[in-house]
Amino acid sequence: MSAEPGYVTGGDQAALLRRLKRIEGQVRGVHRMVEEDTYCIDVLTQVSAIKRGLEKVSVLLVEDHLRGCVLDAAKSGDDAEADAHLTEVTTALGRLLRS
Amino acid sequence: MSAEPGYVTGGDQAALLRRLKRIEGQVRGVHRMVEEDTYCIDVLTQVSAIKRGLEKVSVLLVEDHLRGCVLDAAKSGDDAEADAHLTEVTTALGRLLRS
Amino acid sequence: MSAEPGYVTGGDQAALLRRLKRIEGQVRGVHRMVEEDTYCIDVLTQVSAIKRGLEKVSVLLVEDHLRGCVLDAAKSGDDAEADAHLTEVTTALGRLLRS
Amino acid sequence: MSAEPGYVTGGDQAALLRRLKRIEGQVRGVHRMVEEDTYCIDVLTQVSAIKRGLEKVSVLLVEDHLRGCVLDAAKSGDDAEADAHLTEVTTALGRLLRS
Repeated sequence: MSAEPGYVTGGDQAALLRRLKRIEGQVRGVHRMVEEDTYCIDVLTQVSAIKRGLEKVSVLLVEDHLRGCVLDAAKSGDDAEADAHLTEVTTALGRLLRS
Repeated sequence: MSAEPGYVTGGDQAALLRRLKRIEGQVRGVHRMVEEDTYCIDVLTQVSAIKRGLEKVSVLLVEDHLRGCVLDAAKSGDDAEADAHLTEVTTALGRLLRS
Repeated sequence: MSAEPGYVTGGDQAALLRRLKRIEGQVRGVHRMVEEDTYCIDVLTQVSAIKRGLEKVSVLLVEDHLRGCVLDAAKSGDDAEADAHLTEVTTALGRLLRS
Repeated sequence: MSAEPGYVTGGDQAALLRRLKRIEGQVRGVHRMVEEDTYCIDVLTQVSAIKRGLEKVSVLLVEDHLRGCVLDAAKSGDDAEADAHLTEVTTALGRLLRS
């Protein structure tokens, strides 16, 4: 089974899925905190932790895209394709930094 | 049932819980996207949307804290208490901006 | 000379101005790094430091606004005014978190 | 004159330097606003604009690094070098997203 470019595969995929499961649990935890009238500041601290988790997920996705798409195209000599993938990822990065 | 300072109550609470449910669903959606080998850039776009949702939740929590804690203390003439709550919220804000 | 609400005054103002001077120097430093062909990653590290400096400035401005406008209005019993200032600051916060 | 990997060159460099000059002017503008007791919320709006400018600079630096280092190494068949540059840029990205 070979890794297809642009898709998260193998060990990276398992790690990403575990991180997303944890984030889902954290969001459910914040829901419960708000239901149970937890002190706002404590809820905010937990929201900050979820944001950091999502940022880690983003970096993993970007790294995966760079390895799986940009590098593969460059290695196979397809400069136009490598260039197109690189433009795509920098556009996504701009959106991410602003969100 | 009166609103206690520092806790999310009433209409705000219902709106927050709805937002958190939506975010939980979005995180599950990203998990499915990664499992189903969705193109990385599309996953990244969805992660950016979740981050924006969390930021909206943060702003609602800060606003709630300011209304429920800081203002109430100030109105009741308890300056030291208002001051303590305000310091607490700016500390949380610093953490949030950095996350 | 009394502090007018919504304006940065006294010790806070001096501290803010010092921080802004330092940030200006850092931006000039990055300009020089780019001119002198410094390695991209080192430039990026410096840009991250400037962003953190600006976030600290933002938090100080928000805190100042909350102390100078929102609290003062609340203490003087002007609930509508306190409320208007608070809405204004949460709107600015939303913009800041997204930028 | 050929572009050396990892350094900002040619048209990109001129564009970056122009952006940095503009950011430096904006920081000076905020300094003046604070000195002249401009309303906090207006200062905050201007700080948000500077942060967005810095994010654009960051994205340009990352794109430049990817084109000049990672792609060049991949094209020349130096996989270990391409890999090392890619790890470096994802580390810088993590720091940037958190700042």
